[in-house]
Amino acid sequence: MLEELKQQVYEANMLLPEYKLITFTWGNVSGIDREKGLIAIKPSGVEYDKLKPEDMVIVALEDGKVVEGDLNPSSDTDTHLELYREFSNIGGVVHTHSQWATIWAQAGKDINAYGTTHADYFNGPIPCTRVMTDTEIEGDYELNTGKVIVETFNDMDINPDYMPAVLVKSHGPFTWGKDPHEAVHNAVVLDQLAMMAFYTEQLAGGAYPMQDALLNKHFYRKHGENAYYGQK
Amino acid sequence: MLEELKQQVYEANMLLPEYKLITFTWGNVSGIDREKGLIAIKPSGVEYDKLKPEDMVIVALEDGKVVEGDLNPSSDTDTHLELYREFSNIGGVVHTHSQWATIWAQAGKDINAYGTTHADYFNGPIPCTRVMTDTEIEGDYELNTGKVIVETFNDMDINPDYMPAVLVKSHGPFTWGKDPHEAVHNAVVLDQLAMMAFYTEQLAGGAYPMQDALLNKHFYRKHGENAYYGQK
Amino acid sequence: MLEELKQQVYEANMLLPEYKLITFTWGNVSGIDREKGLIAIKPSGVEYDKLKPEDMVIVALEDGKVVEGDLNPSSDTDTHLELYREFSNIGGVVHTHSQWATIWAQAGKDINAYGTTHADYFNGPIPCTRVMTDTEIEGDYELNTGKVIVETFNDMDINPDYMPAVLVKSHGPFTWGKDPHEAVHNAVVLDQLAMMAFYTEQLAGGAYPMQDALLNKHFYRKHGENAYYGQK
Amino acid sequence: MLEELKQQVYEANMLLPEYKLITFTWGNVSGIDREKGLIAIKPSGVEYDKLKPEDMVIVALEDGKVVEGDLNPSSDTDTHLELYREFSNIGGVVHTHSQWATIWAQAGKDINAYGTTHADYFNGPIPCTRVMTDTEIEGDYELNTGKVIVETFNDMDINPDYMPAVLVKSHGPFTWGKDPHEAVHNAVVLDQLAMMAFYTEQLAGGAYPMQDALLNKHFYRKHGENAYYGQK
Repeated sequence: MLEELKQQVYEANMLLPEYKLITFTWGNVSGIDREKGLIAIKPSGVEYDKLKPEDMVIVALEDGKVVEGDLNPSSDTDTHLELYREFSNIGGVVHTHSQWATIWAQAGKDINAYGTTHADYFNGPIPCTRVMTDTEIEGDYELNTGKVIVETFNDMDINPDYMPAVLVKSHGPFTWGKDPHEAVHNAVVLDQLAMMAFYTEQLAGGAYPMQDALLNKHFYRKHGENAYYGQK
Repeated sequence: MLEELKQQVYEANMLLPEYKLITFTWGNVSGIDREKGLIAIKPSGVEYDKLKPEDMVIVALEDGKVVEGDLNPSSDTDTHLELYREFSNIGGVVHTHSQWATIWAQAGKDINAYGTTHADYFNGPIPCTRVMTDTEIEGDYELNTGKVIVETFNDMDINPDYMPAVLVKSHGPFTWGKDPHEAVHNAVVLDQLAMMAFYTEQLAGGAYPMQDALLNKHFYRKHGENAYYGQK
Repeated sequence: MLEELKQQVYEANMLLPEYKLITFTWGNVSGIDREKGLIAIKPSGVEYDKLKPEDMVIVALEDGKVVEGDLNPSSDTDTHLELYREFSNIGGVVHTHSQWATIWAQAGKDINAYGTTHADYFNGPIPCTRVMTDTEIEGDYELNTGKVIVETFNDMDINPDYMPAVLVKSHGPFTWGKDPHEAVHNAVVLDQLAMMAFYTEQLAGGAYPMQDALLNKHFYRKHGENAYYGQK
Repeated sequence: MLEELKQQVYEANMLLPEYKLITFTWGNVSGIDREKGLIAIKPSGVEYDKLKPEDMVIVALEDGKVVEGDLNPSSDTDTHLELYREFSNIGGVVHTHSQWATIWAQAGKDINAYGTTHADYFNGPIPCTRVMTDTEIEGDYELNTGKVIVETFNDMDINPDYMPAVLVKSHGPFTWGKDPHEAVHNAVVLDQLAMMAFYTEQLAGGAYPMQDALLNKHFYRKHGENAYYGQK
């Protein structure tokens, strides 16, 4: 069942250690089959060098029930599901504790756009969620994590198609994309931007974001109808 | 004698260079057989690429006498022994000079909990010991190092089962776990947390630890009776 | 056509991932045949592990028209061309988003000369361009990027033969050399200098450049008629 | 002639890229035969992957004349020679531009002892030389570099046997040891200490060196008559 999606999700998961985005088992990737309303996700706490494509767990989008698989799905599954339910164009989701993105999440700060590297992928500051309430944490914590992400995008009127990343306060980053592979790609970019933004602020002695004209020029050079980066 | 423990301790020692926790011979791992009252520990100053399982030295828990082995045990053996005597549930101990943990030890500061990466392993700030007196240093230095660690845990009423790490002032970290392998695992986590905590404070412009509800949620998601992370 | 130049440019491009100057496809190298008035440059957005020498695109120096090749040339081609037109001694150009050089570019600061490592390659501070106007960005952006670089060198009376690097504000570095290989060499040096200059300023509590006598001693020990570094 | 020394010096040179102490050709190692009054040193500007043992150049201690070898010796040869002449117990010398040691050299600051990692190798702060005069730079620059190092040790009454490293202002580190291999070992330690000292000061909000009792305990645990670290 969904062998191709499971293979795709497996391969995307295996990129996390390759890109040094994770230590031990601190990350997970999922992918969705929108027609069937099912996602494939990494099992919880399994070491990467023992992971196999058939270990991916199939979970129903609607209610989070395990549809196929002998292992427990990632403990973060309910966060992934909420993102798929609310961000209707995304095909893959990644969660890591990658160092620099996590540092910004721990400090609870949005990552401003300081250069074209950022603008090539993210059309504005990368948002950080608010502090969760004790009730949210002690209740359906993982689901509520997803809800707080969605709330952030709604409140700040951010389009998740143009902003494929978020920082969860005191926790770490989630990224997404049209498929699991692109979600991992964005996780790599995010961590590098987070590092460069930190040192840019230190060096500039404060936060002086780039001008909008350059931000938009670079974003739309790679995205949307008039993009001219790459091959046709 | 204790061939299995020696093999286990050897393998855990060999993880130190693999995880880049050490430079040259700056680290050591031990493991204990509680029934026999004996520990196995790395010999002093032997290079890692020449180390063999049979080089591990067997030392008596009670008095530190070498029971088996032609080589001198690690010069830090008396510190390890004191930890085994006073922290009755631990099965393995690691000492390294890993860079970021050592930086915090040199600065003499506890590492606050800033995020879920920390909370997944350590249920509160990771303590740093007080400055040792000249008398303690010029006397049984390595034993006194162990005593100051224990004093720190007693004075601050910290449970070593929930806090498997300490920073020794002007020196470096010790970590422990249920076995040598878990102690090394915790040493890796500690160094990464130490790095992220440093930059979190720089970015946030001060020390603003995470809320207790989130700290406990993540710690008990992975530890104790109600843990639900990983596979059964 | 120009098989040797294409091979040379291909090899120089392949050094970018080897020296960790780029992530994904964030960089490009070109080389010029001055007699024929043609450059060879990396195609746009092609992944490095799929790149082949024959993929290099041949473009006319004068008007930027593609003379040979099925792929689109790098989106930064017009910047490269402007540098070749105005800096008449250079034979290769490199653009990357290498981390430390990009941090300085994002902060919009020149990199002062703090030591002999800098002086061995760059005879003074490495300049950062001014902010581009919205008109420049919305017009022929890549060409205007080249023009702003040239303007910077003209306004500050910098000789590009003695200063083979520039930082483009909010963007990243360009470097050059007598051939594509030397341009990559200078890109490696630039990033390392950028890192060391950042920490030197942090440690010294401000910007205290080295004395001119030492700067010139080291630069001319390696460059020009009286150089005595290396073999004859 | 001196085949064994040339082999030893060659191998020590090859450790520089292995330990990531150098970029390109930015470093050199030499060794001495005290009886014959000759040193072997790396040729100038030769790439490491092309270096062979027979390329090492033999130079006379007394006057710096090349005694054997077709290649030019390192441009820093006169600095090495001055150190051998004045520091009579040393058998090997290393010069690099390793990043963290160079940062301290560029900032012109001594590296305080902040922990036992430092104390295990260096019995006090690692000194940085004064700014050289224009006359010293424009004259016999490399020889004068050596003289300024010796002056620093004399003025501050430092014993080079207990302090096998120096930072040359606006330049970089020199280290030494009983043989070329130990000199490289000390260069590795120096760079790591330099990194940790930087962050220790940042974290502690200033410079608070360790107490003398601990510094001496660790230094003499490894050095001198009463050392008990390692095997007999």
